[in-house]
Amino acid sequence: MARPTKVEITEVGPRDGLQAELNFIPTDAKIRFVNGLIAAGVPRIEFSSFVSPKAIPQLSDVVEVFEGIERTKPCTLAALVPNAHGAIRAVEAKVDEMIVFMSASESHNQKNVNRSIDESLDGFERVAQIAGDAGIPVHGAIATGFGCPFEGDVSLDTIVKIAKRYHEYGFIGVGLGDTTGMATPPIVTKFVRTLQDAVPEMDIALHFHNTRGIGLVNVVAGLDEGIDKYDASFAGIGGCPFAPKATGNICTEDLVYMLDEMGIETGIDIRKMMEIACDVEETVGRDLPGQVMKAGLRLDLHDMGEVATAKG
Amino acid sequence: MARPTKVEITEVGPRDGLQAELNFIPTDAKIRFVNGLIAAGVPRIEFSSFVSPKAIPQLSDVVEVFEGIERTKPCTLAALVPNAHGAIRAVEAKVDEMIVFMSASESHNQKNVNRSIDESLDGFERVAQIAGDAGIPVHGAIATGFGCPFEGDVSLDTIVKIAKRYHEYGFIGVGLGDTTGMATPPIVTKFVRTLQDAVPEMDIALHFHNTRGIGLVNVVAGLDEGIDKYDASFAGIGGCPFAPKATGNICTEDLVYMLDEMGIETGIDIRKMMEIACDVEETVGRDLPGQVMKAGLRLDLHDMGEVATAKG
Repeated sequence: MARPTKVEITEVGPRDGLQAELNFIPTDAKIRFVNGLIAAGVPRIEFSSFVSPKAIPQLSDVVEVFEGIERTKPCTLAALVPNAHGAIRAVEAKVDEMIVFMSASESHNQKNVNRSIDESLDGFERVAQIAGDAGIPVHGAIATGFGCPFEGDVSLDTIVKIAKRYHEYGFIGVGLGDTTGMATPPIVTKFVRTLQDAVPEMDIALHFHNTRGIGLVNVVAGLDEGIDKYDASFAGIGGCPFAPKATGNICTEDLVYMLDEMGIETGIDIRKMMEIACDVEETVGRDLPGQVMKAGLRLDLHDMGEVATAKG
Repeated sequence: MARPTKVEITEVGPRDGLQAELNFIPTDAKIRFVNGLIAAGVPRIEFSSFVSPKAIPQLSDVVEVFEGIERTKPCTLAALVPNAHGAIRAVEAKVDEMIVFMSASESHNQKNVNRSIDESLDGFERVAQIAGDAGIPVHGAIATGFGCPFEGDVSLDTIVKIAKRYHEYGFIGVGLGDTTGMATPPIVTKFVRTLQDAVPEMDIALHFHNTRGIGLVNVVAGLDEGIDKYDASFAGIGGCPFAPKATGNICTEDLVYMLDEMGIETGIDIRKMMEIACDVEETVGRDLPGQVMKAGLRLDLHDMGEVATAKG
């Protein structure tokens, strides 16, 4: 399979990245980030989540954030919905797209949403109806899609079963999420091929974390299978609940930099993306893992007087 | 070209990683690191440098470190030598291999070693004689091999010229060093192919930095060209003089993890490597960029009571 010449990046920083922040990020800042992303040409943004404000207080301003967004460029604004109640709120807000999610492992799904896999799947029927009645497309995400921190390897049969149910519900796409950074290139290759065979009509998206340092390598493994949809987070914000100092989502501007250098189009202005990443870092008030935001682009040259020496 | 099934990793942390440390790392600790690396099965170590102690005080204990090394397993112990004086000292110490280095750009070579490219090349003739008389193999490194922070892109003609001179001098290998993290997959492919054509008799090694987040992606690009020799640094220690918070060398245990998962043999015990990385981090007393040392291996499972939730 030839690598795609164009890739659609979904910025998940405002949702997956910020949700783990202990301090509440002001609504104004969230709106500024999203509007910056739209202006930078990001084609799709997971801007927030219609979860219970008690479960994730950080995202309790989902409606205010959505109302503050200025659509200065074409952009799909997607929100996470955990259940029918969230779907109703998402319809009221008139989001462009809903994203449902469940885990590929029983233990993680139980822990995360307090349901069995079958209970989650059954519950999504109602979400599909609500979204369908409102004419809002749904994308189905599969968390722990490359491994579960409690169970280890996950079953491809389960992933196929979930994807097929998503397809039956009329969802437009399915995303494999590497929740705790357990994906590896051979697993990506195998899982993607299986999914392409199982649900050829669906868009397949990949959501990698850099928890073990190989997030972008996994993207390349996905590209080699022709996958052209990837999630990433500005400045690489978002951690791993199991490894306090490890990184979370792959970093958007590092991904854009890599794709730019590989001649793969994203439509995203890397300089603007770097500015947003710096803004996010300043707003949360601590160092974030993004590299290009610190080092600049490869041809951002330096003055010879700048440093003493490099030595090999 | 098929990917290799076996890769030789050179651990450069004791030299390239530690040389940038502001506080002097005790000689005992350096010896402990190197002996740990040997016990972990690392096949080749750049253990220190015979540079002037005034230029790099951190490596002034090169002889003491070498004398403290216990060869509990087969391992090539290589030292950097900047010039004939360093080569004489390396012969006296009886190192297994010498590594000379120069930059592919005039400005960086001038800045780094105060010589023109031709002056560096001419000077290595004497190093080659000294090493040859002692029967010690020499490896030639090319810094700024994928780009120069002062000049931008470097000339492939210059790289070929340097590599051919290295070959004339009888050096066994040539290494392309990505000193400030400017390599990208297409550049790696192009430069490696050119070098393979120019000096087919020489071993080619690649030395990547993760300054812009794509160090391991560049390794995969190298693997795709059949390259089976890579430098890396424990815990990812070593920075970039031009970007204070950016990372430096790619991280050894993250590289070993990736290769293990790709079914490519390194002979290195990943668990032991992770222990050494933690020791290095504790010794230097600050967070280092290695990821696997923080997150563990992918099948290091967690207890369900460990964290509250992950949410997608």
